[in-house]
Amino acid sequence: MRQAQCSSSAPWLLAIALLTPLMVRWGSGQSLDRTEIEIPNIPGHLTLKCDFHSHTVFSDGLVWPTIRVEEAWREGLDGFALTDHVEYHPHQEDLPFKPNQPYELALEKARQLNIVLLRGAEITRDMPPGHLNAIFLEDVNPLQDPDYRKAVQAAASQNAFVFWNHPDFPGPEGQFVWHPEIESLRSAGLLHGIEVANGQSYYPASHRWCLEKKLTMMGNSDIHNPIGMEYDFSRGEHRTLTLVFAEERTPLSIRKALMDRRTAVYWKNLLIGEEQYLRPIFESSVEILNPNVAIYEDGEALVQIRNRSDLLFELQPISNATGPLNYSGLALHPKKVSLLRVTAQSGARSGEKNVSLPFTAKNLLVEPDQGLKISLNLKVNIAQAKKN
Amino acid sequence: MRQAQCSSSAPWLLAIALLTPLMVRWGSGQSLDRTEIEIPNIPGHLTLKCDFHSHTVFSDGLVWPTIRVEEAWREGLDGFALTDHVEYHPHQEDLPFKPNQPYELALEKARQLNIVLLRGAEITRDMPPGHLNAIFLEDVNPLQDPDYRKAVQAAASQNAFVFWNHPDFPGPEGQFVWHPEIESLRSAGLLHGIEVANGQSYYPASHRWCLEKKLTMMGNSDIHNPIGMEYDFSRGEHRTLTLVFAEERTPLSIRKALMDRRTAVYWKNLLIGEEQYLRPIFESSVEILNPNVAIYEDGEALVQIRNRSDLLFELQPISNATGPLNYSGLALHPKKVSLLRVTAQSGARSGEKNVSLPFTAKNLLVEPDQGLKISLNLKVNIAQAKKN
Amino acid sequence: MRQAQCSSSAPWLLAIALLTPLMVRWGSGQSLDRTEIEIPNIPGHLTLKCDFHSHTVFSDGLVWPTIRVEEAWREGLDGFALTDHVEYHPHQEDLPFKPNQPYELALEKARQLNIVLLRGAEITRDMPPGHLNAIFLEDVNPLQDPDYRKAVQAAASQNAFVFWNHPDFPGPEGQFVWHPEIESLRSAGLLHGIEVANGQSYYPASHRWCLEKKLTMMGNSDIHNPIGMEYDFSRGEHRTLTLVFAEERTPLSIRKALMDRRTAVYWKNLLIGEEQYLRPIFESSVEILNPNVAIYEDGEALVQIRNRSDLLFELQPISNATGPLNYSGLALHPKKVSLLRVTAQSGARSGEKNVSLPFTAKNLLVEPDQGLKISLNLKVNIAQAKKN
Amino acid sequence: MRQAQCSSSAPWLLAIALLTPLMVRWGSGQSLDRTEIEIPNIPGHLTLKCDFHSHTVFSDGLVWPTIRVEEAWREGLDGFALTDHVEYHPHQEDLPFKPNQPYELALEKARQLNIVLLRGAEITRDMPPGHLNAIFLEDVNPLQDPDYRKAVQAAASQNAFVFWNHPDFPGPEGQFVWHPEIESLRSAGLLHGIEVANGQSYYPASHRWCLEKKLTMMGNSDIHNPIGMEYDFSRGEHRTLTLVFAEERTPLSIRKALMDRRTAVYWKNLLIGEEQYLRPIFESSVEILNPNVAIYEDGEALVQIRNRSDLLFELQPISNATGPLNYSGLALHPKKVSLLRVTAQSGARSGEKNVSLPFTAKNLLVEPDQGLKISLNLKVNIAQAKKN
Repeated sequence: MRQAQCSSSAPWLLAIALLTPLMVRWGSGQSLDRTEIEIPNIPGHLTLKCDFHSHTVFSDGLVWPTIRVEEAWREGLDGFALTDHVEYHPHQEDLPFKPNQPYELALEKARQLNIVLLRGAEITRDMPPGHLNAIFLEDVNPLQDPDYRKAVQAAASQNAFVFWNHPDFPGPEGQFVWHPEIESLRSAGLLHGIEVANGQSYYPASHRWCLEKKLTMMGNSDIHNPIGMEYDFSRGEHRTLTLVFAEERTPLSIRKALMDRRTAVYWKNLLIGEEQYLRPIFESSVEILNPNVAIYEDGEALVQIRNRSDLLFELQPISNATGPLNYSGLALHPKKVSLLRVTAQSGARSGEKNVSLPFTAKNLLVEPDQGLKISLNLKVNIAQAKKN
Repeated sequence: MRQAQCSSSAPWLLAIALLTPLMVRWGSGQSLDRTEIEIPNIPGHLTLKCDFHSHTVFSDGLVWPTIRVEEAWREGLDGFALTDHVEYHPHQEDLPFKPNQPYELALEKARQLNIVLLRGAEITRDMPPGHLNAIFLEDVNPLQDPDYRKAVQAAASQNAFVFWNHPDFPGPEGQFVWHPEIESLRSAGLLHGIEVANGQSYYPASHRWCLEKKLTMMGNSDIHNPIGMEYDFSRGEHRTLTLVFAEERTPLSIRKALMDRRTAVYWKNLLIGEEQYLRPIFESSVEILNPNVAIYEDGEALVQIRNRSDLLFELQPISNATGPLNYSGLALHPKKVSLLRVTAQSGARSGEKNVSLPFTAKNLLVEPDQGLKISLNLKVNIAQAKKN
Repeated sequence: MRQAQCSSSAPWLLAIALLTPLMVRWGSGQSLDRTEIEIPNIPGHLTLKCDFHSHTVFSDGLVWPTIRVEEAWREGLDGFALTDHVEYHPHQEDLPFKPNQPYELALEKARQLNIVLLRGAEITRDMPPGHLNAIFLEDVNPLQDPDYRKAVQAAASQNAFVFWNHPDFPGPEGQFVWHPEIESLRSAGLLHGIEVANGQSYYPASHRWCLEKKLTMMGNSDIHNPIGMEYDFSRGEHRTLTLVFAEERTPLSIRKALMDRRTAVYWKNLLIGEEQYLRPIFESSVEILNPNVAIYEDGEALVQIRNRSDLLFELQPISNATGPLNYSGLALHPKKVSLLRVTAQSGARSGEKNVSLPFTAKNLLVEPDQGLKISLNLKVNIAQAKKN
Repeated sequence: MRQAQCSSSAPWLLAIALLTPLMVRWGSGQSLDRTEIEIPNIPGHLTLKCDFHSHTVFSDGLVWPTIRVEEAWREGLDGFALTDHVEYHPHQEDLPFKPNQPYELALEKARQLNIVLLRGAEITRDMPPGHLNAIFLEDVNPLQDPDYRKAVQAAASQNAFVFWNHPDFPGPEGQFVWHPEIESLRSAGLLHGIEVANGQSYYPASHRWCLEKKLTMMGNSDIHNPIGMEYDFSRGEHRTLTLVFAEERTPLSIRKALMDRRTAVYWKNLLIGEEQYLRPIFESSVEILNPNVAIYEDGEALVQIRNRSDLLFELQPISNATGPLNYSGLALHPKKVSLLRVTAQSGARSGEKNVSLPFTAKNLLVEPDQGLKISLNLKVNIAQAKKN
C-alpha cells in the first residue's frame, strides 16, 4: 500500500521549512561550486589538471581575464595560462593591448581561489612557424619582436617553456609538415612541446612527433568564448587538458614537469601519453571488487569492477586461446561499478588458479593507433558442473 | 585561432575507430552499471544502504522478484528485503501465492551480484494495527494466521525484526494515533521499529515516537512498480532508504544493528537520525581545503569546503555576535567544492586565532524540527587593512 | 529472446559509418543551436521573449558585447537591450568608456542572427532614485549629466522607455520605499515601468506598485557574467525575462507594447502579469485530449491534459461542493501530457452533463498573493455502477 | 549591480508559499507524465508510434502486463502488442501459461489510457523458421500446434499479420539466411514482414530483404525487463519502434497499413524506410526560417533552420560544383534551430537567384547504405563586396 503521506498537524509547513532553502539557493548557489576532475595521482607525483592556452578580450578572446580564473576553478583545474596573442588585437581600437595586463588583472582572483596562474603569450605568425605559446614568462613585452626567432629567444631568456600550437594551421585543410623553421627551433633547444590536442581536435601527427623527437605532449582548450559555449558540462564533457605529473602544485614544479616531459593529454574520451603515466592512472582508478571467482564448468560468474575516476576505460579483449575463461569487452564508465561476465572455456579443468585476462584499453593511447595493454587478474575456482 | 582540426591522412577514419566502440556500447552497457551511494562509514561501523519494504508480482507488486535484485544492485544498495503481503494477492487467480517463493526465486541472482537479500513479509490488517513488516524470517508460512498477534508471535519465534509501516494508513487523511494494539505489541517486545519515511512521505510523528519509545527508525521504498517509474535517477533522486550502521555486510550484522537501533533514514534530501550517527557522517563527508585563512580587516576570504559524499548539507548560520567573522549560510552540494565567504567583523582585532563558525545543518534532522548543530573550524589571521 | 545482433559481413564498420558523424560533430555543433522558448502567442499579439537589462566589459560586465547576442540567440530570445552603466566603469583604465560602443559592436551580429538589439543605458545613482534603465535610445552621450533628472529628460527627449531597476537597492537589507524622487519622475511621465524581477529576485512590492500606479512590469537578467555561469540551462532554467505582447517583432512595436503596459514577467517558474495576458497564454498552452469522460458512479476516469508550452502550470483545486466530480490538484509539466484522475461524488446522478472544474493556477500570479483562476471543462457521462 | 533580492515584509515565507508545492509534487508527479514523440504526420496518414514485440511474466518477461501499458503511455506510443512466447514459459511452475491472459489483464488499463493494445503471440521455434510474431489475433490458443506451419495457418485464419523476428537468431554469431521454410511461408502469403531492427540491433540484411521481396519493415523493442532498465530516456533515447502510416488510430487501420507496407523503422538515430515516407517526414519537420539570403561576394550568411521534430537529421553536402554557394554539412538536432553558414563561391555573379543546396540525410536510410537525398532551397541575393 503506498497511499500513506505526511499528515501530522502541520506537515505541509514542515516540508516547506525543510525543503525550501535548498531550492531557493540552488539557482545561483550551484554555479559557485567547483567540480573536481577525479583522475588519481601516480606514485611520486600529483596529477595536475592544466590548460596552457587561453584568450581574453585583450587579444581575440571574448571575456575579461577574471572570468578565466572562475571558469578554471569551477571546472576543477589546478592551473592555467593566459596566452593572448602578441600580434593580433581585433579589439585594439577600444582596448589598447597591454601585454602583461591580462595576467595582472587575473592574479588576485587566482590567489583567492588558489589556482596556479601562469603568465603566457602566443607568438602568432604565418606558418611556418605558425603559432607558438610561451609560458612561465616574467614579462611579455620583450616578445613583441618582428623577428619570431628573437621573440622566442626573448622567451627563452626568461626560462619560458615554449610549444608549437595546432600544427595544421590554418585549419582543416592544413598539412602536417615538420618545417625547417620548427626543426631549427627544436635543435636550438627553443621548442619544448607540441599541441597533440587543441579544443575539438586531436592530431595524430603531433602525437607521433612528440614520441619521436622527445617533445612534451600538450593538450589545451585555446578557449576564446565563455567556456560554457564550447563544452556541455552537463553531459560530462571537459575542456581539452594537459595532465601534468608534478611534485607540487606550484608554478616551479609544473615547469619542471613540462621540461621533463611528464604530461599526458586528456581530449574527449581519450587519454594520450606514455605508458609510464597511463598505466598507474589505470591501476589506481580501477578495482576488482570480487577477484575471487567461483564458477561452474557450465556456468558464468559476474566480476564487479569499480572505476573510481572520471575517465572512461574502453576495454577490448585480446585473444587468449590458452586461458580457462571466455570473456568479452566492456566499458568501465566513470564512477561506476561495471560487470564482466566470464564463463569457463569448454575443457577447462576444475581447480583453483590465478588467471590474468588481457585487454587493450582502446582509449588510452600510447601511440596514435595503439591502446595500452592491461590485464585484469582473478583467482578462479572452477567447479564441476552442477547435476540437476 | 580555433579552426585547427584533425587532418592527418585519414583523420575521419581515425576518429571513427577511436570513438565508435564507446557509443555503440553505451546504450545497453550503461544500464548494466552500478552507481554507488557515497555516504561514508562511521567509526567502528559500515554504513549500509538498505530497503526493508518491497513487493513483487506475488502480492500486489508488478515485477518478478529477480528484478528487485537488479534494481538494488544498480542503485548501489547493500541489502534489501522482499516483503510481499501475507493476506493481499490481487494476482492470485493467475499466480497462486507461495509465501516463500519471492525470496527463493531471487536468491541466486542476489548471490551472483553480492546483495544481501532478506526474507520478509508484510502482515496486512486494517488499522489498528495496520501493516507490520517482519524481516529475517526463515519461513513465511506460519505468519498466515488470522489473528495478527499470533502472526507477529510466529515472526518473533523466528527471531524476526518487526516494524510498523506507514502509521497514517490508510492514507493522506489518516491520523497518527498510538493505538493500544501497537502499544501492546511494543510492550511485549514484539515491535522493534517504525517507518519514519515510506516512499514519498516522511512522518514527523513516527520520528518522535521512535525517539520517545526507543524504537528503530526505518525508511523504505515500499516499491510496487519498476523502481524507475517512481524515482528519476537521472535527476539525482534516490529511493527512500534505511542506513544501517553494522559491523559487517551480513544479515546477522544487519539484524543486530536494527535491534540496537543503529539506523538513520535517508529520505529525499533529509537525513534523519540520532546525533551519534549524523555527526560522524557529516564530519567524514566534509573537508575544509584551506582552513588557514588570511584576511584583511576590510577584506574577504573564500573558504573552500569539499563535500565528498552524495548527501546535501544545508548550513544555516547560528547567530554569533562575539566571533570575529561575518558569514552567511551555504549549501554543500554533493561531490562539490563550495565557497564560504567570510569577512572580518568591524572592530575585529588583528592577529591569529582559532575560530569556530557555528551552523545548523537544516536537513540533518536529530528531531522533527531540529537540525544538527555543527561548526566549521578555521585558523584566522586578521591583518590591518591595506593602504591604497 | 534478445541476443540477436547486427551480424552482416561487416556490421561493425556499418555501425561506424552510420553513427560516428553525429558524435564527432555533437561536441561543438550542439553549442551552435538555438532553443526556442515555447510560450504561445496571444490573440492579436506575438509573445516576444525579451531582456532589457544586461552588461558588457564596457561597464562592469565581463564579456564582449557580441557574446550577449550569441547568448540571446541560443536561449531563444527575440530581443534584448545592452544597458551598460553610464557612471560606473571599473575597467576604465584599460577600456575607456564609449557610451554607444557596446551597441555598435554588437549590431552586425544581431542583424546576422536576426535578434532585435536595443540601445540602452543604466543611469546609476545612489538611492533615491537608484538605478534607472533607458532603452530605445539613439545616443547615450546626452545621458552623461550629473543631474539625474536631466539625464532622464535627455532619455525622454529621445523617446526612450525608462524603468526603475531593483527598487530594494542596495541589496537584501534594502527597503521598498516609494521615494518622492521616483514619484516625481512618474508624475512627470518620465518613468514607465519597474523591475518586478531582476536575476534571482522577485519583488512583490514592485508587482503591487505596477498594478496600483499603472506602470509596466519588467523582468530582466541584469547579467554581468557569461550567462551560463548564472543559469543552468541543462536543468531547464531560463534567464529572467519580460514577455512583450507586440504586433510585430520590431523595436518600434516592442516600444509601443511597453508603453501600453503589454508585458508579463517570466521568473523561475512564475509567470507574473495581468489576467488579460496570462489567461490566453494558459488557454493556448493547454489542451484536454479526451474531454468526453465516461465514468461509473463508483469508478474513476483519467483525463489527459497536454501542455504544449515550456511553462509549468501548478493547478490547485478550488473547493467545489456542488460539482459531480472529485478531483485533486496537479502540475502540468512543460511539454508533457499529464493525468487528472476524477471520480464521481457520492450521490452524483447518472447522465450526461457539462462540468467545469475550477482551479487556481498557483504560479500564474495576477497579484502578489493571487494565482489565476482557470477551469477545465469536461463533458461527463456518469453511468450506474457496474455489477460484478 | 546584482545584489538586489526579495525583501518585502516576509519574503522568505512568500518564496516558500510560491515554490514549495511544485517541489513536493515533482518527485512522484513527474513519473505520471506522458512524453509525446514528435514525428509529424504525412499527407493523408497519421504517423503512429508502435511496438509489436513485447513480453510479460506470462512467458520470459519480468513485468506484469499492465506495466507494459503504462510504459507505452509514458513513452508516447500509440499502440503496441503483447507477444508472449507460445512455447517458452520459464515461470510456468509459479505462473501457469494462459495464452490470452496477458492481453486480457492489460485491456482495461489500455482503454483507460487510450492506447491501442493488440493481442499477439510469438511462435518460438528453432531456426528455421526461428521466431515469428502474429498480431491482431482473436485467440492465441489455436497457435499452440507442434507443427509451426499449422500454428502460422491458425494465425492466418484469424487474419493475423505475421512477421519474422530477429532473423540472425540465435544471436551475434548467427547468419542471415533466406531459409526455404521462410520462403515457403512467404510464397504462401503467410509471412508479411521482417524485423529490420530489434532492440539494440539493426539488420541491413533484413532491410534489403524487405525491399526486394516487398515485405513490411518492422522495428520493435522485444522488451523483457522494465523498459527503463534498457533505455535511458533522460539521455533522449527511445525504444526501437515501427512508425505506422495509418488512416486512423485504430487496430483495423494499423492492420491495413501493415498489410500495405506503410511503415518505417525508428532505431536509435536512424529512420529506415521508403522514400515515399521519409521524404514527407523530413519536409514536415524542417523549416528554413530565413530563406531569403542576402550575401556579399566576400561575405557569409547564416541560414536558420528549425527542426520541429524529435528526430535528428544528419546532413552531408553533395558536391555541387556549379552552385553559387559554398556550404558544409550540419546536424539538425531535435527541437532546435541550427545554423548553416554559406559563402559565395569565388566568381559567383551578383544578382538574385533561386538556389537549391543538395544534401544526403545520412541517417534517413532508404537503402542499407543509402541516405535520403534532400535539398534546402534558398532565394539568394549576392551583392558586390563592401568597400572598406
